[in-house]
Amino acid sequence: MNLLAPLALAAAVGSLSAPAMAQFQKAEDAVKYRKAAFTVMGTHFARVGAMANGKVPFDAKLAAENIAIVETMSHLPWAGFARGTDKGDTRALPKVWSEADDFKAKADSMQAEVAKLAAASKTGNLDAIRTAFGAVGQSCKSCHDNYRKE
Amino acid sequence: MNLLAPLALAAAVGSLSAPAMAQFQKAEDAVKYRKAAFTVMGTHFARVGAMANGKVPFDAKLAAENIAIVETMSHLPWAGFARGTDKGDTRALPKVWSEADDFKAKADSMQAEVAKLAAASKTGNLDAIRTAFGAVGQSCKSCHDNYRKE
Repeated sequence: MNLLAPLALAAAVGSLSAPAMAQFQKAEDAVKYRKAAFTVMGTHFARVGAMANGKVPFDAKLAAENIAIVETMSHLPWAGFARGTDKGDTRALPKVWSEADDFKAKADSMQAEVAKLAAASKTGNLDAIRTAFGAVGQSCKSCHDNYRKE
Repeated sequence: MNLLAPLALAAAVGSLSAPAMAQFQKAEDAVKYRKAAFTVMGTHFARVGAMANGKVPFDAKLAAENIAIVETMSHLPWAGFARGTDKGDTRALPKVWSEADDFKAKADSMQAEVAKLAAASKTGNLDAIRTAFGAVGQSCKSCHDNYRKE
């Protein structure tokens, strides 16, 4: 398998130019990449959550640093959902590809909510961060509930 | 195992504030995170390499986008090398921890070379990018040769 054809959505989602989207040589590379991007994003998102939920003291600078990483990562996984990457070590459901328009809408929504979280982090206001954090969490959940195996 | 004690180097390396470094609850989380960060970094570094090596046409904007992601990622893996994370699904050799000063020096060097690559990408000059790309590649190899299982 060569240069996987990206989903139409992949070319339209995220901040990278379209050519970057077709650069996975093997399906397993695309799967590994998207999972890695989610792992990094989730790790830093959880650190924001610990502050939002009062489990660790709020540190505005640290929150902003973590959120900046979340924002960078939020644009990346989608290129890894190229057609033909529904096999192997993945929990992605076939609906990712058969309901690609809705999947794209949810991916777009997540990135939009993360952008709002990034804006909130620049205020240094914990309440604003907490509200935006909750909206991002809902957008994550919406996609996981629909497109990820248990 | 709770809040792994980070390597002394981890607290000093990278752009994140020190408290972020001690937030892995389990060793396996730290291992998974550092590998994920390297996977994302390597994917985007390879895309720069394809241009540097003439395998795909040079696109200055695309190169800069990929290099920006490489730079963000270059600061992240080190927090995952906390003490006690030498077990499990990892190719990290025990020397990472027994020769921590040298490992830190090599991690610092990689980040410094990536910063030069980022500067080169802002010139849009392929020769400058190619030179800086090579130096980053050498810094990767230096660490892999010494600290990673075959």
